[in-house]
Amino acid sequence: MSGPTDDEPTCSVERSLQIVGERWSLLVLRDIFVGRHRFAEIQTSLGIAPNLLSARLKFLVEAGVLCTQTYQEPGSRPRQSYHLTEAGRDLQLVMAALQQWGDLHCPRPSGPSVIRRMRSTSQPVHVGFLDDNGHEVPGTDVTVLRDTGVRA
Amino acid sequence: MSGPTDDEPTCSVERSLQIVGERWSLLVLRDIFVGRHRFAEIQTSLGIAPNLLSARLKFLVEAGVLCTQTYQEPGSRPRQSYHLTEAGRDLQLVMAALQQWGDLHCPRPSGPSVIRRMRSTSQPVHVGFLDDNGHEVPGTDVTVLRDTGVRA
Repeated sequence: MSGPTDDEPTCSVERSLQIVGERWSLLVLRDIFVGRHRFAEIQTSLGIAPNLLSARLKFLVEAGVLCTQTYQEPGSRPRQSYHLTEAGRDLQLVMAALQQWGDLHCPRPSGPSVIRRMRSTSQPVHVGFLDDNGHEVPGTDVTVLRDTGVRA
Repeated sequence: MSGPTDDEPTCSVERSLQIVGERWSLLVLRDIFVGRHRFAEIQTSLGIAPNLLSARLKFLVEAGVLCTQTYQEPGSRPRQSYHLTEAGRDLQLVMAALQQWGDLHCPRPSGPSVIRRMRSTSQPVHVGFLDDNGHEVPGTDVTVLRDTGVRA
C-alpha cells in the first residue's frame, strides 16, 4: 500500500472499496484463501476471462494484498503463484462477514456451503462486534463517532 | 430477497456480492447508515450521477436491503426517503469490517475518520471472530469446512 495521502477518500470504507470493491477482486481473494494459488486453478474455478484475471491479480499485487512466488513444473516455463500478504490475510474477516450475511439474508435452500470453525476445538465461529476485553457487543449497542467526537 | 434457488452461486460470499458487490451500493448504504435518507442528500454527499443513484436505490430496494417512506415538504410533490430493512441493518458488520481493514492497511496520515464505540459505555468496539459463548477467537484459529466436512 504505497503512500496514502489526505487527498484520498476520508472514509476508510471508501478507501477499502478502492482495493476490494470490485466483485472479481473478492472472489479471486476467496479462491486464494481456500488454497488456489495458480492462475489456471483460479481461472477454472471462477470462469473469468484470462485477461480480466491477469488485470485483477496485477492490481491486487500492486495494492499489497497479494504477493507472487515463482514455481516451475518439469518441462514448463517458470510461472507465478499468488499468495496472501498480511493485509490480504486480514481480509478474512471482511469475507467472513459477507458470507455470514449471505447465509442469513440470501440463503440457499440446501444450507450454507461452508462452515467456519475453530481449528483447535472444532467449535463454530461467527463474526461480531467486540469490546477491548474480547467480549461480544450487540450490534444495536454500536454507534459511530466522527473523529471530532460528534455522533455521525 | 425473493426466492433463492440452488441455481444461484453456491458460495454465500458470491451471493452477498451479487447484492453489495458494487462500490456504489456499499457507499449508498454507508450514507443511509449515517442518517442520509433523501435522494438529494445522498447525491450531494457521494457526487454520483442522479440516474446511477436512482438505479442503485431501486436495485437495493428490490434486493430487500432498503425500504422507502413517502414524505412531503410544504409546496413540493411527495417524495421517497430510503431506510434500512433488517437485512440492510445487518450489513453494519460488513461495513465495519471493511472500515477496520481500511484503517489498518490503507490509513490516512491524519488517522481514522470515524471511531466505533458502545452507546452504553463509550468503550471502543472492534470487529472480530467469536465462539458461541461470545468470546473472541484469533483469526489464526479460524478454519473453513465445506458442508461435506472436508477442510476447504
